[in-house]
Amino acid sequence: MAYTDRVKQILSWYPSDNPGTLANLARLLNTGTLAGTGKLVILPVDQGFEHGPARSFAPNAAGYDPDYHIQLAIDSGCNAYAAPLGFLEAVAGKYMGEIPLVLKLNNSDTLAKTDFPISAVTSSVRDAVRLGCSAVGYTIYPGSGARNQMYEDLREIIAEAKDYGLPTIVWAYARGNMSKQGETGIDVISYAAQISAQLGAHIIKVKPPQDFLEQAEAKKVYEQYKIPTATMADRIRDVVKSAFNGKRIVIFSGGESKKTEDLLEEIRQIAAGGGFGSIMGRNAFQRPHAESVKLLKDVMAIFKSAP
Amino acid sequence: MAYTDRVKQILSWYPSDNPGTLANLARLLNTGTLAGTGKLVILPVDQGFEHGPARSFAPNAAGYDPDYHIQLAIDSGCNAYAAPLGFLEAVAGKYMGEIPLVLKLNNSDTLAKTDFPISAVTSSVRDAVRLGCSAVGYTIYPGSGARNQMYEDLREIIAEAKDYGLPTIVWAYARGNMSKQGETGIDVISYAAQISAQLGAHIIKVKPPQDFLEQAEAKKVYEQYKIPTATMADRIRDVVKSAFNGKRIVIFSGGESKKTEDLLEEIRQIAAGGGFGSIMGRNAFQRPHAESVKLLKDVMAIFKSAP
Amino acid sequence: MAYTDRVKQILSWYPSDNPGTLANLARLLNTGTLAGTGKLVILPVDQGFEHGPARSFAPNAAGYDPDYHIQLAIDSGCNAYAAPLGFLEAVAGKYMGEIPLVLKLNNSDTLAKTDFPISAVTSSVRDAVRLGCSAVGYTIYPGSGARNQMYEDLREIIAEAKDYGLPTIVWAYARGNMSKQGETGIDVISYAAQISAQLGAHIIKVKPPQDFLEQAEAKKVYEQYKIPTATMADRIRDVVKSAFNGKRIVIFSGGESKKTEDLLEEIRQIAAGGGFGSIMGRNAFQRPHAESVKLLKDVMAIFKSAP
Amino acid sequence: MAYTDRVKQILSWYPSDNPGTLANLARLLNTGTLAGTGKLVILPVDQGFEHGPARSFAPNAAGYDPDYHIQLAIDSGCNAYAAPLGFLEAVAGKYMGEIPLVLKLNNSDTLAKTDFPISAVTSSVRDAVRLGCSAVGYTIYPGSGARNQMYEDLREIIAEAKDYGLPTIVWAYARGNMSKQGETGIDVISYAAQISAQLGAHIIKVKPPQDFLEQAEAKKVYEQYKIPTATMADRIRDVVKSAFNGKRIVIFSGGESKKTEDLLEEIRQIAAGGGFGSIMGRNAFQRPHAESVKLLKDVMAIFKSAP
Amino acid sequence: MAYTDRVKQILSWYPSDNPGTLANLARLLNTGTLAGTGKLVILPVDQGFEHGPARSFAPNAAGYDPDYHIQLAIDSGCNAYAAPLGFLEAVAGKYMGEIPLVLKLNNSDTLAKTDFPISAVTSSVRDAVRLGCSAVGYTIYPGSGARNQMYEDLREIIAEAKDYGLPTIVWAYARGNMSKQGETGIDVISYAAQISAQLGAHIIKVKPPQDFLEQAEAKKVYEQYKIPTATMADRIRDVVKSAFNGKRIVIFSGGESKKTEDLLEEIRQIAAGGGFGSIMGRNAFQRPHAESVKLLKDVMAIFKSAP
Repeated sequence: MAYTDRVKQILSWYPSDNPGTLANLARLLNTGTLAGTGKLVILPVDQGFEHGPARSFAPNAAGYDPDYHIQLAIDSGCNAYAAPLGFLEAVAGKYMGEIPLVLKLNNSDTLAKTDFPISAVTSSVRDAVRLGCSAVGYTIYPGSGARNQMYEDLREIIAEAKDYGLPTIVWAYARGNMSKQGETGIDVISYAAQISAQLGAHIIKVKPPQDFLEQAEAKKVYEQYKIPTATMADRIRDVVKSAFNGKRIVIFSGGESKKTEDLLEEIRQIAAGGGFGSIMGRNAFQRPHAESVKLLKDVMAIFKSAP
Repeated sequence: MAYTDRVKQILSWYPSDNPGTLANLARLLNTGTLAGTGKLVILPVDQGFEHGPARSFAPNAAGYDPDYHIQLAIDSGCNAYAAPLGFLEAVAGKYMGEIPLVLKLNNSDTLAKTDFPISAVTSSVRDAVRLGCSAVGYTIYPGSGARNQMYEDLREIIAEAKDYGLPTIVWAYARGNMSKQGETGIDVISYAAQISAQLGAHIIKVKPPQDFLEQAEAKKVYEQYKIPTATMADRIRDVVKSAFNGKRIVIFSGGESKKTEDLLEEIRQIAAGGGFGSIMGRNAFQRPHAESVKLLKDVMAIFKSAP
Repeated sequence: MAYTDRVKQILSWYPSDNPGTLANLARLLNTGTLAGTGKLVILPVDQGFEHGPARSFAPNAAGYDPDYHIQLAIDSGCNAYAAPLGFLEAVAGKYMGEIPLVLKLNNSDTLAKTDFPISAVTSSVRDAVRLGCSAVGYTIYPGSGARNQMYEDLREIIAEAKDYGLPTIVWAYARGNMSKQGETGIDVISYAAQISAQLGAHIIKVKPPQDFLEQAEAKKVYEQYKIPTATMADRIRDVVKSAFNGKRIVIFSGGESKKTEDLLEEIRQIAAGGGFGSIMGRNAFQRPHAESVKLLKDVMAIFKSAP
Repeated sequence: MAYTDRVKQILSWYPSDNPGTLANLARLLNTGTLAGTGKLVILPVDQGFEHGPARSFAPNAAGYDPDYHIQLAIDSGCNAYAAPLGFLEAVAGKYMGEIPLVLKLNNSDTLAKTDFPISAVTSSVRDAVRLGCSAVGYTIYPGSGARNQMYEDLREIIAEAKDYGLPTIVWAYARGNMSKQGETGIDVISYAAQISAQLGAHIIKVKPPQDFLEQAEAKKVYEQYKIPTATMADRIRDVVKSAFNGKRIVIFSGGESKKTEDLLEEIRQIAAGGGFGSIMGRNAFQRPHAESVKLLKDVMAIFKSAP
Repeated sequence: MAYTDRVKQILSWYPSDNPGTLANLARLLNTGTLAGTGKLVILPVDQGFEHGPARSFAPNAAGYDPDYHIQLAIDSGCNAYAAPLGFLEAVAGKYMGEIPLVLKLNNSDTLAKTDFPISAVTSSVRDAVRLGCSAVGYTIYPGSGARNQMYEDLREIIAEAKDYGLPTIVWAYARGNMSKQGETGIDVISYAAQISAQLGAHIIKVKPPQDFLEQAEAKKVYEQYKIPTATMADRIRDVVKSAFNGKRIVIFSGGESKKTEDLLEEIRQIAAGGGFGSIMGRNAFQRPHAESVKLLKDVMAIFKSAP
């Protein structure tokens, strides 16, 4: 498809990337219901690894099957489908490009406890290339004592991915050296978005921020300069601004399963605050099939009508 | 041999693998008494390393000799013979392909105590290639604080093995951050199977699960969705479902030596629950030769007549 | 431009470097208002990463935007603009050589706490080459228990950078095994400058030293040989002498935001003591645009009129 | 020389090795007084490194000189001479193949104390190739918490050595997670021999085992199956059996200096139990020259007349 | 120059080295006042890094300048000049072979405290080659819990240096798992010399040993065999004997600044005991220029007239 002005504008924010990487970034932006709008809704299914199979798939047992999710992403018009190695191995050679794939290169599970929060690197950029993916994903835990290893692994992944023409999506979940509430504090989420952008992320995925300030030094500044944080839209705006004044794509996760109306209200706020989209897993695939397709379409409709 | 429909179906679950890897996977499925059925019985002999020579071979002293085991695997019609480097070095150049070999790439022993449970990597994919093996094996301990190192080593092994056309069998034994009973709890075993599948295992080997739930969050879900776990067949079904809805081959270990009838009853349950087969070491080679051949044939007969 | 005698003299202090590295060093010295004087003023913007976006950019919200800073560096006639990967990715392909770029290869943040002070390596020499940079920057923390890893990483970076014709700027901030006051003690800062020079730094960046002696053994010597440390100019002189008797370029940071007159007085002392220039971030970009351009020009004027 | 039937038989136990490796193994077996018998006596001189120069060489000061030992090995008709890098550098280019050399790749000393027992890797397979060696040696400490690093280093060494046609001799000294007495317990020594064989050792070197059982689980089995351990010959037999039913060459160390008759009696037991030979350092070179030559010849005579 | 018999004899002790390495070793032996005598006096200037600039250079402020030291080494007729990377970078391209250079590859400083004594590797063999050096230097701390890392780094350095035709000088300072006095105990120094030789050092640098025995086991042997340790000459003799019976070059450091006569008396003892020379830093460059040239010439005269 011919690139829309908005897609061209977004691509202009990545002036140092090679054509291959920009082409794949464009592929994500030009797929599905939201194609050309500059908005994205991605279906991620890594919960089997992260939380275990029963907790993830028992609510809608069709989800035990790897074929189910990619089909759901296609049926509902998502921009892309993201999953760990095994789930993509099981479908990539069958669907061969029907929808852009994102290989999540690292994963954690709830069985083990490591010294510091850090996921295991469970696949490689070469795997993503071999499986025909359009992007790779990597999770960092800003605040973790294992920060250096994560950032250094990510640096190598981004560099290698660029060489192969693949953009990188960074999942940034703050945890470690902070309070539980601080993990979603607005200062922390905005800082995590900034770090991700500085590390070279093309797309940044964070949790919706709460009206809480974790770091004393940051609190002073938010108060002194009266940065609004009362509504979710306010906070989304701060996060997007913290990602290079909106020149990096920031999308937001849905988190635990919620009631549909609560979820849609959150999406409206994200859209109002200038969020670029959503990455929604459990809220989608744990619902019965028709219901989840409808929900995803409703979410897309909100983003489509956003300014 | 011409591939049966069942073998073709199983191979179709690995659509992203190269022909070399699929050919070796087919070789495992098309060897021995169970050839073409989609079922597998593998003889593994790593106990000399894992438990020491006397504990492993004194009950049937013929087993001190590396030639004994491969011959036992051939005589009894196993699909494959699996062992550490030394045992395979001692026979590979002599039997040269008479039966598919699986090189177990890592091993632990009972003399040392490491900070976290983690086996030593004792041979390489290149060794497997050089020795003419049809697959490699690697043991992970989900729940160990050394999780990241194991998963990352495994990731590299799977990738390298695929490059050489070799599928990977993952031995998944949960241990570390959990209760002793939890190591074989149904939620933990199913989670271990899921992790192995997500890491890219072609074949997954776990212990038969017990009717126990280790993780509080998982327990809630098993109860809420009434997932049956009362019989071994029920639990096997949950494990197989957790391995990509049955689209990954899951086989079960025999564990410590048991009375023949108990063992065969367990095999019947495994077969009834949809297990793809058994990997049986001590229960086989610690019996006198004729007795172990008969036992293995009885086990194969059960799997052969399973639906 | 034709090289001035002063620039030729400075280049003569690096007789073992290849022409590519010397050419880029000359490029830094021959750009901007101070071109040819042997003095440098560099604009560094890594505070978004190091302190968080709100603390860095809220005072002058234009600074959230990566385009703002490089333009500020150009407008004010700086010798170079230094930043982490993300900020340079966002502008390098757009400004393409309008001003020399310095890629800061490692960064820390205030969210995490590592065992010893050590920044994460967040980009590579190859990135600097790809982005058309004229130098790379690397931060060491002399005094940290992670000294060996930092010095060894730096050794490899300097060697690789030289191979590509890039000089290295070392940010040397003492911390770790010393008192808080000792971090800017004159003996410590001079020692840090010496270490940086011995490690092969082409340009060394330290904080302005204070009239305090941290190490007992050093204190004895400063007193015995009556090394003057009373004025800032005295101390700057000691630091410059400690960097190979002035044969390595030493520049000084501005630190936290200050009142303009205090800042200019400090610059006068730095210039009087033989400092080669300043690297000034927050004091520049946190002021309104016109004010920061003026400040930078005033600073340059001081260095220009220094002997 | 034409290979004897015994040498041919021994070589047949290594069917997977390449011709280069087998040729060097044959070179060890076909050198010196015991050539062709399938028995080996090796002179190892690493005590200067392991215990210090005075403790090693003061009793016979000629031993400070590296030329002394290789000449002693030649004069007494040993199969090979084994030493660390420095000692071999000092003679290899002078004796150029007069006797097979074994480069000991790792060494410990008594000055330092590491977290877990583990030798430093002090030379490489490439060094062995460059020096014209016929084999490499590597020490493992089964029972050490650093097991994984040692086994993984050894795995790489064996693989690389094979590529260059060099067999590997493993020195297996149990220590770490066990009682002092357990270090030479028969169950532990046999287990150490099994591990070495499984790791791919061509020749295994252990201490003469004592009549003590360290591991409770092993003790049960030794008792249940009435494995004889009363005499040294009994125990040697168990160790040799534990090394692939005698299909791996196992040789025994002499340990600390002893009275000649005690030493020869021990050798008789080793020979009676089916041991393949001895590796004798201090008992040889700390005696006056003529005496040590005579002792080594007496030892060889015992092995020569063994069945 | 034509090689003297003594130089030929010394070179004969390194029969396994390639011609390039021997040629550089000869270059060290055939330079300066002591050319052809088999004795060496080397000027090392790493104290700016190791102790800080003021403590090193304030006593003779000319020493802040890197040009000063190489000129001092030339003026006084030293065999070689040794320094860390930075100091050599500053002069190598200017003096281009006027005197053999030794690049010290690792260095420590007094600002930081690492877990175990271990220097940082601050330059590489490739740097030495690029700078036209005739040898590399590396410091080990026998007795340190970081022994394995140091010995393994050194192993790689020696191997790589040989490939480029460069001999290696090992600085061996015992410290860590021993008493303060033990660091210069005669048994410890002799052990450190033995370890260095076994690791493959071409030249070994230790401190002058004291009449103290640290290790109980060694003490027994020194007493039993009546090894004389009363005079410095006695002890030097023991150290030289412990370095392969005098077949490795051992030189001795001067340590802290001393009165001239004390220093010369120590040198006489070193020469009388068969020491191959001195490596003298602070005692030389901290004196006024003429005085230090005279001192170095006096030292050389002592070695020249030694047997």
